[in-house]
Amino acid sequence: MPPVKTLRDLEVILAHNPAKKDDARLAFIGILRSNWSLDDCPKNLTQARESTKGQGVIEIDPEYRAGLTGLKRGMKIWILLWFDKARRDIILQAPGHANGLRGAFALRSPVRPNPISIQAVEITTIDKASGVIGIDATDAFDGTPVVDIKPWRHGLDTPSME
Amino acid sequence: MPPVKTLRDLEVILAHNPAKKDDARLAFIGILRSNWSLDDCPKNLTQARESTKGQGVIEIDPEYRAGLTGLKRGMKIWILLWFDKARRDIILQAPGHANGLRGAFALRSPVRPNPISIQAVEITTIDKASGVIGIDATDAFDGTPVVDIKPWRHGLDTPSME
Repeated sequence: MPPVKTLRDLEVILAHNPAKKDDARLAFIGILRSNWSLDDCPKNLTQARESTKGQGVIEIDPEYRAGLTGLKRGMKIWILLWFDKARRDIILQAPGHANGLRGAFALRSPVRPNPISIQAVEITTIDKASGVIGIDATDAFDGTPVVDIKPWRHGLDTPSME
Repeated sequence: MPPVKTLRDLEVILAHNPAKKDDARLAFIGILRSNWSLDDCPKNLTQARESTKGQGVIEIDPEYRAGLTGLKRGMKIWILLWFDKARRDIILQAPGHANGLRGAFALRSPVRPNPISIQAVEITTIDKASGVIGIDATDAFDGTPVVDIKPWRHGLDTPSME
């Protein structure tokens, strides 16, 4: 889904745009480099993996590179991205893939009050000195800000009933 | 791990506290109600599930309740929480469970530049009119702000090699 979205029939926008709220503030820790632009992003990570240009690179800012200590090639991680080009005020949406309206919290759409994307990926290369991490796939476009990296854990990240 | 953390030997703090940065702003969408206080939080979600008081309740603010449309009891979801009591400036940490120092991005510690927690849980009850969602487990303490809910997806949220 393209990150800049126009309103479709029946979609509902919030009376107050969450973009105007200031309940907490983020510090960007780096930037995502990918082969995608605003117009040709894949729909999701699965589709990105099927493409020959689905890989990405994370560039971590110098001050935060010590935070990479302990990460290694082959590890599964979460990347948290801030979809800064996405609308934040469409609370009830009409996604192309579903019948009828869905709430922003029942969708993985980038359009949501807080446009944080969580992406489960694998580290393909890592150079801590330069802060450059290769990842096996991303569906986000070049230049997307990065807000966090965490190790992926099977026991934690799979709900109890699976 | 308790949310307020004092510095241990050899731990490294950032020259500039990320809490002073203003790269993007969040809008809290609701609050978590749990049986945990600052002093007795379980270490993680697995430990919370083993406790008789590990369940939690999410209360979504009135303006955001339309966003719940499509969520149902039994669905697996992600809850994104903002650990507002956590230090954000310890980039190299000495966790009790590991030998030596680890970077914040190699840990699931609440202590990190952007203290966003992602929790994979199951909806046990949901009342969209009042915005109240019961979840099977949480390790966060009562009053923690909620920033997002997303459906959990097996294909997306399990890295490619699993």
